[in-house]
Amino acid sequence: MAGSISEAVLRRLPRYYRYLNELEADHVMQISSKELAERMGLTASQIRQDINCSGGEGRQGFGYSVPKLRRHIGKVLGIQSKQNMIIIGAGNIGSAVALSDSFRTSNFYTVAIFDTDPQKIGKKIGALTVLDYKDVAAFLKRQPVHIAVLAVPFASGQSVVDRLHDLGVTAFWNFVPADLDIPDDATIVSVHLEEGLQILSYKMKESSQTF
Amino acid sequence: MAGSISEAVLRRLPRYYRYLNELEADHVMQISSKELAERMGLTASQIRQDINCSGGEGRQGFGYSVPKLRRHIGKVLGIQSKQNMIIIGAGNIGSAVALSDSFRTSNFYTVAIFDTDPQKIGKKIGALTVLDYKDVAAFLKRQPVHIAVLAVPFASGQSVVDRLHDLGVTAFWNFVPADLDIPDDATIVSVHLEEGLQILSYKMKESSQTF
Repeated sequence: MAGSISEAVLRRLPRYYRYLNELEADHVMQISSKELAERMGLTASQIRQDINCSGGEGRQGFGYSVPKLRRHIGKVLGIQSKQNMIIIGAGNIGSAVALSDSFRTSNFYTVAIFDTDPQKIGKKIGALTVLDYKDVAAFLKRQPVHIAVLAVPFASGQSVVDRLHDLGVTAFWNFVPADLDIPDDATIVSVHLEEGLQILSYKMKESSQTF
Repeated sequence: MAGSISEAVLRRLPRYYRYLNELEADHVMQISSKELAERMGLTASQIRQDINCSGGEGRQGFGYSVPKLRRHIGKVLGIQSKQNMIIIGAGNIGSAVALSDSFRTSNFYTVAIFDTDPQKIGKKIGALTVLDYKDVAAFLKRQPVHIAVLAVPFASGQSVVDRLHDLGVTAFWNFVPADLDIPDDATIVSVHLEEGLQILSYKMKESSQTF
């Protein structure tokens, strides 16, 4: 098993996983680092280095076994078995996460969605019914869940984190545009959607320049 | 002006921009690479290298001027002036983008949102009224816009890209979970939300291991 992976390699692993999934769906069973590089817009040596750093193995003159490498990366990412999550906030973001298929592909299943808004409580979002956030403690006592998606307004972010952590949640996928304080034993990944838009802006500018 | 920036540095620039904005809002006018490094969880030498690569300047013993560096990075990203965008798809993701404040902070303004669903056309989303997608050509003829947010179902992604490109859209911020083909003169940045969740999964696993 590989030890800790650098942040830069880690950030690329989900892309490898996605491409390998697509290859497998297309019945491609083996691939060279060169072909994978072309598909991903990286260099072959970077590919070999990344896979090597994450403990994956290829064979000279054969390349990589697509299903084996996909399973290996899935194991490194810890997504080889089913994980449950709850969503706090049944607004647009919370609903989009609840309704998306992309997360089930990675073995993440939403088991409940909570809100404080009486207009939203009781409403159906796909197969789920929006639950009252004041019942979150009772819910987690009955069915412990360690991952929460934070899709609440800015002002509520920190208090929701504090409460959920007291109830045993240790991993937060955060859509609140705030720097939230997380206890040492907990983990947070924040989504800053505007970063993608800024990168798009840079690329537009670059592609419009004549060299 | 700096030339092309490596993809790795580019990916970090929005984070610099965000932290510098926060510092400026807190009336912090200057900062050393060491302080910025602590705040961002990077090393001071990485900070100096990134800023140097993107053409920014600091002064020995003084550090960086926060407003000057923020403006510089904004200029590199091309977000110093207002840019209009349209959203295709008034579902949860499209609505979330239309309602978010985060994009206006980066000078991106949604001027219209389109859908094909008669149930959604005419509905209000914030200050916008959902327009009929069949009127998109007439709209863009009246008011050319070069950036489109793609928030349509999987099956419609490619045809929407093709149509909009014919109408002068050259930059796509893509939420459709598909590999879309983009003409050479166009730019695309795709959001793969599940990647964040996979990174969270890895970090949970790491933090639960005892060394």
